[in-house]
Amino acid sequence: METNQHACQCRQQAHSIPETMKAWVLGDPDELVYVDKPVPEPGPEEVLVRIDAIAICATDLEIIHRGPPALIQGGLPFNRNFVPGHEYMGTVVRLGPNVDEFGIGDRVAVEIHAGCGRCERCREGMYTSCLNYGKNYGDQNKGHRANGFTTDGGFTQYAVNHINTLVRVPEDMSDEEATLIVTAGTAMYGLDSMAGLIAGQSIVVMGPGPIGLLGVGIAKSQGAQPVILTGTRDNRLEIGRKLGADHTVNVGRENAVDAVQRITGGCGVHYVLECSGAPNAINDATQMLMRGGRICLAAFPAQPVTVDVAGLVRNNISMFGIRGEGRSAVHRAAAFMQQKRFDARLIHTHTFGLEELPTAIRYARERIDDAIKVVVKMPR
Amino acid sequence: METNQHACQCRQQAHSIPETMKAWVLGDPDELVYVDKPVPEPGPEEVLVRIDAIAICATDLEIIHRGPPALIQGGLPFNRNFVPGHEYMGTVVRLGPNVDEFGIGDRVAVEIHAGCGRCERCREGMYTSCLNYGKNYGDQNKGHRANGFTTDGGFTQYAVNHINTLVRVPEDMSDEEATLIVTAGTAMYGLDSMAGLIAGQSIVVMGPGPIGLLGVGIAKSQGAQPVILTGTRDNRLEIGRKLGADHTVNVGRENAVDAVQRITGGCGVHYVLECSGAPNAINDATQMLMRGGRICLAAFPAQPVTVDVAGLVRNNISMFGIRGEGRSAVHRAAAFMQQKRFDARLIHTHTFGLEELPTAIRYARERIDDAIKVVVKMPR
Amino acid sequence: METNQHACQCRQQAHSIPETMKAWVLGDPDELVYVDKPVPEPGPEEVLVRIDAIAICATDLEIIHRGPPALIQGGLPFNRNFVPGHEYMGTVVRLGPNVDEFGIGDRVAVEIHAGCGRCERCREGMYTSCLNYGKNYGDQNKGHRANGFTTDGGFTQYAVNHINTLVRVPEDMSDEEATLIVTAGTAMYGLDSMAGLIAGQSIVVMGPGPIGLLGVGIAKSQGAQPVILTGTRDNRLEIGRKLGADHTVNVGRENAVDAVQRITGGCGVHYVLECSGAPNAINDATQMLMRGGRICLAAFPAQPVTVDVAGLVRNNISMFGIRGEGRSAVHRAAAFMQQKRFDARLIHTHTFGLEELPTAIRYARERIDDAIKVVVKMPR
Amino acid sequence: METNQHACQCRQQAHSIPETMKAWVLGDPDELVYVDKPVPEPGPEEVLVRIDAIAICATDLEIIHRGPPALIQGGLPFNRNFVPGHEYMGTVVRLGPNVDEFGIGDRVAVEIHAGCGRCERCREGMYTSCLNYGKNYGDQNKGHRANGFTTDGGFTQYAVNHINTLVRVPEDMSDEEATLIVTAGTAMYGLDSMAGLIAGQSIVVMGPGPIGLLGVGIAKSQGAQPVILTGTRDNRLEIGRKLGADHTVNVGRENAVDAVQRITGGCGVHYVLECSGAPNAINDATQMLMRGGRICLAAFPAQPVTVDVAGLVRNNISMFGIRGEGRSAVHRAAAFMQQKRFDARLIHTHTFGLEELPTAIRYARERIDDAIKVVVKMPR
Repeated sequence: METNQHACQCRQQAHSIPETMKAWVLGDPDELVYVDKPVPEPGPEEVLVRIDAIAICATDLEIIHRGPPALIQGGLPFNRNFVPGHEYMGTVVRLGPNVDEFGIGDRVAVEIHAGCGRCERCREGMYTSCLNYGKNYGDQNKGHRANGFTTDGGFTQYAVNHINTLVRVPEDMSDEEATLIVTAGTAMYGLDSMAGLIAGQSIVVMGPGPIGLLGVGIAKSQGAQPVILTGTRDNRLEIGRKLGADHTVNVGRENAVDAVQRITGGCGVHYVLECSGAPNAINDATQMLMRGGRICLAAFPAQPVTVDVAGLVRNNISMFGIRGEGRSAVHRAAAFMQQKRFDARLIHTHTFGLEELPTAIRYARERIDDAIKVVVKMPR
Repeated sequence: METNQHACQCRQQAHSIPETMKAWVLGDPDELVYVDKPVPEPGPEEVLVRIDAIAICATDLEIIHRGPPALIQGGLPFNRNFVPGHEYMGTVVRLGPNVDEFGIGDRVAVEIHAGCGRCERCREGMYTSCLNYGKNYGDQNKGHRANGFTTDGGFTQYAVNHINTLVRVPEDMSDEEATLIVTAGTAMYGLDSMAGLIAGQSIVVMGPGPIGLLGVGIAKSQGAQPVILTGTRDNRLEIGRKLGADHTVNVGRENAVDAVQRITGGCGVHYVLECSGAPNAINDATQMLMRGGRICLAAFPAQPVTVDVAGLVRNNISMFGIRGEGRSAVHRAAAFMQQKRFDARLIHTHTFGLEELPTAIRYARERIDDAIKVVVKMPR
Repeated sequence: METNQHACQCRQQAHSIPETMKAWVLGDPDELVYVDKPVPEPGPEEVLVRIDAIAICATDLEIIHRGPPALIQGGLPFNRNFVPGHEYMGTVVRLGPNVDEFGIGDRVAVEIHAGCGRCERCREGMYTSCLNYGKNYGDQNKGHRANGFTTDGGFTQYAVNHINTLVRVPEDMSDEEATLIVTAGTAMYGLDSMAGLIAGQSIVVMGPGPIGLLGVGIAKSQGAQPVILTGTRDNRLEIGRKLGADHTVNVGRENAVDAVQRITGGCGVHYVLECSGAPNAINDATQMLMRGGRICLAAFPAQPVTVDVAGLVRNNISMFGIRGEGRSAVHRAAAFMQQKRFDARLIHTHTFGLEELPTAIRYARERIDDAIKVVVKMPR
Repeated sequence: METNQHACQCRQQAHSIPETMKAWVLGDPDELVYVDKPVPEPGPEEVLVRIDAIAICATDLEIIHRGPPALIQGGLPFNRNFVPGHEYMGTVVRLGPNVDEFGIGDRVAVEIHAGCGRCERCREGMYTSCLNYGKNYGDQNKGHRANGFTTDGGFTQYAVNHINTLVRVPEDMSDEEATLIVTAGTAMYGLDSMAGLIAGQSIVVMGPGPIGLLGVGIAKSQGAQPVILTGTRDNRLEIGRKLGADHTVNVGRENAVDAVQRITGGCGVHYVLECSGAPNAINDATQMLMRGGRICLAAFPAQPVTVDVAGLVRNNISMFGIRGEGRSAVHRAAAFMQQKRFDARLIHTHTFGLEELPTAIRYARERIDDAIKVVVKMPR
């Protein structure tokens, strides 16, 4: 039987929280097993979130295929009881000691990374560059969390999260749309990383995946002009137009660099948000930019790529790698979504129940039925 | 017969300025011709500088071998009357109209780049990213100058320069040392570009060429600790120690990444100033840096290189290409030299007269007698 | 008879430019005299602008009453032939030598300040902090311009302006609206000066004058939430709501600090854009802000005010004075107006002809008929 | 009997830690009482520091006279058992759970402020602007600490501190000098707050108190030139010269604004670090600065002052209030001290034992024997 130890702080009647929950955990590579796990307990500065919806990200597919990167890199054993999934939202159902920043019943989206709060990067606010990345276990427990990467993620019913990673979901926003807040926040952080002024300035977004498409919406919300989206599939480029792209370029039909120079009258652009991971992306970006331009690298090319470094140097180009969201970007992206500056729902294409996760993953991996964002809804 | 039209503004008696001067101009590739050229006239916002000394840079060797890069890139003909050379200092001997910022007799070092002052980058103070790069001629004259790159340089007796490019030389500094001010300023701009706090933070300088060695001096002047210099030649590493390096690593004897991790106790460094142009430099730098670290690219690799972009992304690494000096960096580097924070003279190894330029170039190119900076002094 | 020396660069047929023009010049204090003046000639980097419309600013009223501030401060005589007025837009009708950035017929709004381009502040892009402010005459001519402050302004038919001060007017924007671009740019620069992220963050705008009201529009365009406007007149506060204010506070009916704390649930706001010049504005702002908050000072209190400096220090408050527009802010504000993010036309209330300037000024000064922005249109 | 639960992590044999300690606590206003208190226990992310030395700050005198400001402001009762004192250093003698960032025996200086780590400001690295300032008690315990302000300070033998506030003391630095690290860090943060480049730029430091004097040392370490110190007492100005001031101005003998304009040839300075709290300091600073200059406010004037706001606005002046140290400034100041860039020991004038605190305070308050920094050493 469960009790809420912080009833005094509840704004709403707590619903009944079970002691165990259903969860998909990693089995062998490419295998997920549906098991029962105990519902975790929130500690200080933490809450228990009842997961209401979670979107599938390409990185999840990698993790299911190869294991959590941090574990592999850190030499830890492939974790057979690990829950993947990181793009989730839900409802606060239990508060850790002394937490009053959130109340029972609050709907929240959850950032992926919680910093340790005690390393040099965390102290300067760069918690996604936490120097204690992955240290959440045993003697080395520094409190870092990366949902679905180093700590249990969201393909389950409940998760414990640090209050620093919670972002309020507007009342009139659906669960499905709210799963996209963190993705939009990653795009926002990409623009932040380039430290630009954006309004009235020009940008190319390379790659109409979820980050790229929401990057178009974020860039347009900030007043960028023109916003140029490049990609290979017309249906996605069309969604990009609806999200705010002033121009789209199908790189199967026109050289991207030529197109950008044509659209900008030979001036080039101020910024490139690279979300394609294409082998020649950096070199193309260098040629799309005016001198002193900036590139944000938001995609992980599977292989090392060949880069014309002299071109970067000669043209005073800066490049900024980002591994996900950061600083206050998710909060600010959520504000744009609350203000209905762009319609993130355009990239949500399919919905499945938690028990259907393998099917949902197949849709996402094989892009069945032109799937973009596949969302899993929790049983209620 | 010459007359000084701005005699009223002279602080000192003008010395006699001839109508023609000796100059080395480009001939065929790898050929320099010693000719007479007319002494140029300063326009508004310009002065005439009597060149007193000029250092030879590796880029000069490239230009003498292949022609000015801007001309080649711009499709202009190989300019047979072009004067190369860009690391010079001298004395103001004539003032353009309404110039009172400098006086006759002032000793100055000269930055390479003068922006057009009218493009978007110049308006924001990024004059080394001038969008009118190379436009100094004919109908397209926007006033941009890049000494020895797009406009006549310093292997001659006189040069016209924009007042924005002049940096005062302290009284007690020799002409030879003053030729190194702009090189030190490039290293300073490299640190500036990374926007770091530097004092008390750690840095690796890769490559003990002139920019790298002075980069060591600049980094130490700002309080960096530790300053680690990597390279292949012990004599240069030893000079690096004298300029302020706390540690040096001969990469012929120890893996550079291993050495940096050893020195930093496995923490990695905050910054890498890459001055080597080595093919694996970016990948090494990525592994030397702590998460969220920054790289300044100050060298031009001759060929495209293979880069592990995923490593940049995963670790939130930023990279900043710089094509030379910028903003106020040269002024601030000169201040450090005036304050005797490091002894730039350590990298000046040889001196020749103007008429001996071919010999001087041979010393520089073939590193005869361990030449680092070879300086040419003007006849008086 | 006039000739256009740059006909080759004309995109349109040049219209006939007379040799003289009508102009209002300063007479005795509070006196304007309608005279004929020669049409000026553009020099290098300049164009001749045919003024199409000009708005009246409170500062104009000061200048007409007391003379140009720079002249008074600099000890120069009250200039009897000086043309005031600085919020103007028009059409490019003649190009200075080598100008191809603009073409004949281009519609442009004109920033107030042109930097000298040769002082330390201009070199770093801070041209509104030009160290040669006011030096546009005689031996000291450094090329600085401040339209209607130190150089002839816009209550006339033609003006020469530096190309760095020109901002393109979108085709579908009226002349009247375009006179507000620079005012919006000043509000934009106010936000820029605070170096904030703005989207999703909270701001109080104090004082619903033109800068404050457009500041509301600019802040909302950037995604600020909530945007709170304080003032004393309900009709202006109502316009503020239409421009994007989420909350308005009539300080005649509710204490402003209390209201802000009520609206923000006791958290306070991130930013205050102070446009009121009220004696207690800084102290109020300090109490409205959360720790670490920032204030932009965009109004000139007539008298020194009493400031609780300890409150600024204890709460880590930063304050940023701005004397007008700066950097690229006007360009970016124009982009927001082009994108129709807010309707600047709401603050344009009255229009008069050039010959009616004294009446127009009376409307502006006495706020007849609730006048906000009074615009003067040129005879055609 | 005490046990060390983390013996495995000890680098040195733990010395015996008693259960109680001697401490000076607040009595009635201006009264301190020497009592026994229990030695506190470090929690997670905390260590127990054996205090070895503590310097007396003017703010301590205020607190002893009027009570801790946070308590007074927060309406809490005057705390009769509160230990004041905040400028201390010591030795780590016990580690909280999972702390391995420091080891037993490490010598550390201690920053005053530990942020809560969970408010918006802390998440962005602005922990000295923590929005949970003072919340360290009871239901509202968010973990914020301000040593000697809101949580027990250092006029005692032991203190618990968060690891984020610890700065390593170099081996060859005396305890007395190490008490000045945080003061130097405050000056460093003052320069940081102005976001300047500093090297080669000009600065006025107003007020030769400890922060001002160390501010001179920090500014010179960063390469500022000239560094001008203003004050009323020749002996302190003389110490300022030894710490790096290029010029000193006794404002009893020369008008400070005139002097600065004389020294800078009428150009004014880039920065003013205001440490005097004088009523006309901001107005003087405005007149000392070049356009676009910046002021850091590091002193708390006892009364509101009269400020010429129009001067700030007209000249694009920025002002930055700082309530103490911040970000990584203390670490970087410590690096300069480790590198022996300036001799902080010059401002340490007197030493007393803990039991002599009342005498030590009298020396500090009455500046007996020209006391600047009075240090209290702990019994061993």
